[in-house]
Amino acid sequence: MGSKNKVSSTSGWLRPEVASIDASLESSFRARIDAKAKPPGSLGRIEDLAVQLGMIWHPQVPRAGRAALLIFAADHGLTNEGVSRYPSSVTAAMVTTFLAGRASANAFASACNVDVHVVDAGVAADLESHPGLIAAKIARGTANAAVEPAMSRQAAIDAITRGHDIAVGVIRDGADILALGEMGIGNTASSALITHRLAPAPLDDCIGQGAGQDEAGMARKRAALQRAAARVSTTEPLEVLSEFGGFEIAMMVGAVVGAAAERRPVVIDGFIASAAALVAIRLCPDVSGYCVFAHRSAEYGHQALLRSVDAGPLLDLGLRLGEGTGAILAVPLIRAAARLLTDVADLAELLPGAS
Amino acid sequence: MGSKNKVSSTSGWLRPEVASIDASLESSFRARIDAKAKPPGSLGRIEDLAVQLGMIWHPQVPRAGRAALLIFAADHGLTNEGVSRYPSSVTAAMVTTFLAGRASANAFASACNVDVHVVDAGVAADLESHPGLIAAKIARGTANAAVEPAMSRQAAIDAITRGHDIAVGVIRDGADILALGEMGIGNTASSALITHRLAPAPLDDCIGQGAGQDEAGMARKRAALQRAAARVSTTEPLEVLSEFGGFEIAMMVGAVVGAAAERRPVVIDGFIASAAALVAIRLCPDVSGYCVFAHRSAEYGHQALLRSVDAGPLLDLGLRLGEGTGAILAVPLIRAAARLLTDVADLAELLPGAS
Repeated sequence: MGSKNKVSSTSGWLRPEVASIDASLESSFRARIDAKAKPPGSLGRIEDLAVQLGMIWHPQVPRAGRAALLIFAADHGLTNEGVSRYPSSVTAAMVTTFLAGRASANAFASACNVDVHVVDAGVAADLESHPGLIAAKIARGTANAAVEPAMSRQAAIDAITRGHDIAVGVIRDGADILALGEMGIGNTASSALITHRLAPAPLDDCIGQGAGQDEAGMARKRAALQRAAARVSTTEPLEVLSEFGGFEIAMMVGAVVGAAAERRPVVIDGFIASAAALVAIRLCPDVSGYCVFAHRSAEYGHQALLRSVDAGPLLDLGLRLGEGTGAILAVPLIRAAARLLTDVADLAELLPGAS
Repeated sequence: MGSKNKVSSTSGWLRPEVASIDASLESSFRARIDAKAKPPGSLGRIEDLAVQLGMIWHPQVPRAGRAALLIFAADHGLTNEGVSRYPSSVTAAMVTTFLAGRASANAFASACNVDVHVVDAGVAADLESHPGLIAAKIARGTANAAVEPAMSRQAAIDAITRGHDIAVGVIRDGADILALGEMGIGNTASSALITHRLAPAPLDDCIGQGAGQDEAGMARKRAALQRAAARVSTTEPLEVLSEFGGFEIAMMVGAVVGAAAERRPVVIDGFIASAAALVAIRLCPDVSGYCVFAHRSAEYGHQALLRSVDAGPLLDLGLRLGEGTGAILAVPLIRAAARLLTDVADLAELLPGAS
């Protein structure tokens, strides 16, 4: 991966590594779950998830004990346009908070027994080294997508490659489930542009309040995104990503592909992680069978994005924080689904005459 | 509790034990969460849950590490009317499966780190003793509520008392969170009658397919429940409970009260556990502040019940199994909410100038 040559044909570049899910397995996993000691269908979405896990892991038996969250952090030149309520410096401050174990993501991860790794994908500050921090900075923030490409095509490829390699590394270190989250002031703006072009959906359907915006802030955000969208008309996934950013999104694109290549479920957090999944799916449609969309974000643009990939998320809790908080909360559901498949008795064992 | 004398005035019997939640605390817990290092409101329902936990535990700091599920099992005379697709013998077979650790509830509990205790509330079979089984049988199943009261008023009181004492015991043994589930062939029928009278709601709005029923089965179920409903017109909660059953529901009523008395959150599973919570709330309205409604069941009658207690459940996964499966899946959300309150830094610590 990552050589300029291979990348000239984008879709050819990523696709070969990922094995498509064998859809013909679905009915046999469905039958296996229907044979369990419970009324057929009575575990609803958890049964669907069990079928998906069975197909992902086949011919191995699904495991779901160890889960790892990767939080990719980066800054965005778009913040120069006042698209966010918070200054870029909050990104680095939150990285420090993650590493101190005192952010919402850490709290949720402790509650749900999920390991947390933080990745510097492109924070606009020099971060001190820390055992919990994976240093993978592409640059100190992206360029301002309202006036120029957020990053070069090569930087996008490098970021995807690093994200891929980090995900593969975490999985080979023992993670059964990979969860993706992010921190990056301004990144709902990039995600809105990506969704607009790749869902596709009208730009206005993709813009929400992010970390919180008043009316004037929303007007600024809309104007900046209209300028960015007017600058280029591309719908080619890698170009959309490099034009609009950001580095954390690009690394999550690679992480989705890496998880799929390793045949592990990859849990997609909210709007920004979903934007990355959307890019990954457009680059390499076979990854979609490995994605678990964790929750329906309260961020407005997530609705259009979810419709475009035909995803029905597991949770709907009004979350709009990011950091992987929603992805973490989906991990216990995935663990339950795996154990439904592996631990639950068949009805025939219980009541030999009943079925 | 439990003496005939005290019970002559039902509402006076349970109420004094439960301290009502001090609603004036809500704004201070809300402010505390708004001060955390995250955009205000960005954790949606988890923030509401954190406020509830703060109020329940006040003045102590909420803990949510150890969670215990009580599965109350009992049989129903109403099954004589063909209200269920499965025979009563399945109740005892499932108790055996719980004790062997091979039911869906066990699988989910392993996934979510929840302890499981099984209670024989009134199974129509002699169960062998087992370290995981709490023997509290009131009788071998209820009488057929279509033709006579399911149980005597005294039996209902005894069951409530036992359920209360079991819940208190589990909490004093260290459970921070009590989750309630059940197993009882025919118990969606009892729950429909309870909901009809106590929500209140038209009987037809309370009847669903239970463990699965074809059209003829649904017609039988409706006819039996109409006969039961026509037999008595009471809307007095303890009388509704004794007329319509069952023992597992009565014990869960007591368990809700016991958890509230011990100032612990009590996680209500699906339709049947919610019917018990409804009885408990009607007997003793102060318990409602301690209840966490885990999920929206796919069982039709649950919708009317949830509306009547103004509950918006946390999860909506199409579950309709019971056993506490939905309650278990809500436990990680409660743990996350508790840790939001206790573990997450304030914004002011991070960015002294930011707020």
